[in-house]
Amino acid sequence: MIPFSPIVRELPATIPFVGPEAIERRVGRPFDIRIGANESAFGVSPRAAEAMREAIATVSWYGDPEGHDLRTALAEHHGVEPGEVCLGAGIDELLGFVVRMLTEPGTPVVTSAGAYPTFNFHVSGAGARLVTVRYRDDHEDPDALAEAVRDTGAPLVYLANPDNPMGTWHGAQRVRAFIEGLPENVVLALDEAYMDFARDGTDWPMAPDDPRVLRLRTFSKAHGMAGARIGYCVGHRDLVTGLNKIRNHFGVNRIAQAGALASLRDREFVAGVKAEVEAGREEYARLAESLGLAALESATNFVAIDVGGGDRARALLKELEARGVFVRMPGVAPLDRCIRVTVGTAPERATFAAVLPEALAAAAATSSGT
Amino acid sequence: MIPFSPIVRELPATIPFVGPEAIERRVGRPFDIRIGANESAFGVSPRAAEAMREAIATVSWYGDPEGHDLRTALAEHHGVEPGEVCLGAGIDELLGFVVRMLTEPGTPVVTSAGAYPTFNFHVSGAGARLVTVRYRDDHEDPDALAEAVRDTGAPLVYLANPDNPMGTWHGAQRVRAFIEGLPENVVLALDEAYMDFARDGTDWPMAPDDPRVLRLRTFSKAHGMAGARIGYCVGHRDLVTGLNKIRNHFGVNRIAQAGALASLRDREFVAGVKAEVEAGREEYARLAESLGLAALESATNFVAIDVGGGDRARALLKELEARGVFVRMPGVAPLDRCIRVTVGTAPERATFAAVLPEALAAAAATSSGT
Repeated sequence: MIPFSPIVRELPATIPFVGPEAIERRVGRPFDIRIGANESAFGVSPRAAEAMREAIATVSWYGDPEGHDLRTALAEHHGVEPGEVCLGAGIDELLGFVVRMLTEPGTPVVTSAGAYPTFNFHVSGAGARLVTVRYRDDHEDPDALAEAVRDTGAPLVYLANPDNPMGTWHGAQRVRAFIEGLPENVVLALDEAYMDFARDGTDWPMAPDDPRVLRLRTFSKAHGMAGARIGYCVGHRDLVTGLNKIRNHFGVNRIAQAGALASLRDREFVAGVKAEVEAGREEYARLAESLGLAALESATNFVAIDVGGGDRARALLKELEARGVFVRMPGVAPLDRCIRVTVGTAPERATFAAVLPEALAAAAATSSGT
Repeated sequence: MIPFSPIVRELPATIPFVGPEAIERRVGRPFDIRIGANESAFGVSPRAAEAMREAIATVSWYGDPEGHDLRTALAEHHGVEPGEVCLGAGIDELLGFVVRMLTEPGTPVVTSAGAYPTFNFHVSGAGARLVTVRYRDDHEDPDALAEAVRDTGAPLVYLANPDNPMGTWHGAQRVRAFIEGLPENVVLALDEAYMDFARDGTDWPMAPDDPRVLRLRTFSKAHGMAGARIGYCVGHRDLVTGLNKIRNHFGVNRIAQAGALASLRDREFVAGVKAEVEAGREEYARLAESLGLAALESATNFVAIDVGGGDRARALLKELEARGVFVRMPGVAPLDRCIRVTVGTAPERATFAAVLPEALAAAAATSSGT
């Protein structure tokens, strides 16, 4: 009887991710360590925390819908114009606007099977048609993405670099060659949520003169502000104008704007987080090796650990959950032979190192026959 | 060259509201008093402020995408089930989801000419077709809305009660009779952002058994949390299921969830704000009368003051702006013969009372010929 649109009527009632809180409610106790959602274990900059505390004093005022101060600072940071920057309540919200900006029902949209599910959620929610290509050697495959764009005439293609959920990456040269080879009438949503953790040679200067590229960044990862909800994209001003036509202008909260501005200026803090994350990644790699497992080389704040098969990985997730450890894993084969472990603090990593061997043994016992 | 969707290509680059910060940047100095956006002048509950300060400690974690604790508390507050409550980053975000849930390009959507512009922004952004009816005696007109729904077969109709921008209201009986008379295949987006300020006989118990009604509420007004971005709607669980198919699941920030939960429990604070707002409304009415102007009776945290014509109101707004006072006005005749003044603190009201007479005189001088 409810007059749902045809798109919504046909949509399944699925969601991109189940939050750890929902699992905690189901199992009836809180996780001991929460290293499953690639949240930062290293908190926020003290300057950002102070700015957010101060912003509470004026929280009865809407945040600046133009996000002027933060956009100006981001523009300066990246050497672009403020009109080439668009803020959003996290990359998630921006991806939704990007999809709506470029598609109508039935429009093909290209991504990789197993890549960021929230992008797919937005594509389905707009009634657009997902076209997926396979990862190649646990990397998103620019050649396959470009081919699918050419084959389908898709106006939108998604690539995360560094990648989530595998943690792998392509160097700047490879990505820029991919962009050069794209047709004229397509926009690349280049999700750079993890760029703050990337190796040398991955990032390159923002130069938003190509209307085919929108680079998305976030304060959710290295800046430790996932719960504040703030991200941005940098792109050609015509793309930003398009986003301004449909974005939720008052949607970026005042506290997040203040915190992000302060965090952006605290480069020392972010550099410290990056160093801690690098140490943690190496520790995870050694841990995996000590247990006879392979850890994928990562350019993010998480490590994909190959446990040899999807059933085994799913069983391991359950055993970790039963031992108070929240982790996630890729949803699609063959990526799903891995679990995805966020770099925790040193004590959290020690807990994980203590729990993993027994969880592996228990998982081997339950999944050996499958 | 950018492959914008046909909808976005045709959309004008207009925005629902210009923020006061943008005006401040244009005129080169901050406003002395900000009584134009119906933000609360009475801050947030000390308990909410404390909860938000505490939440900063865990802001590196995403907020619960199910908003379990707050939804449970809201359900209890309203005597409904948690599955009949949906959270959003303010009513603005929820209205966008409601429009997308029920329309496709070209779908007629009914509202009142001069009602909330952000709703219209979402309707246009979805490519749906706005059908407007006129206010009657400065009230939204349920009879005209119902007739337009029947005439057009619209699946969605918008009514704000109490109303924005006029501050007028309909009693519960009138609104419920309107709902009863609606066709089966329509959803009423009943925007109750200002219900916390309403007179007796306006509100009625939530009973989300009618799939034609979605009642939207916010923490932006009486709770003083506009800058935190949190609102919710209560409706039939099938409507909530529909919203869950397309909403931005991780979009409601962690700090806002914590603050709203604390504020909901501080009923004394909200009652105090309501009392202050009532006193301020009466003061504005006396001020208007003393200047030979009519103030519309209001059930909100603002008062529409009739200055006798659209040109005069626009001139007055400019004169107030030049004197450091931010107010807004309705955008459509004949509503635009009024300015819309948010209830400020007692000192802010004193400032406004001092400035208004000279601004009126200056406006009369500039607009006398029009």
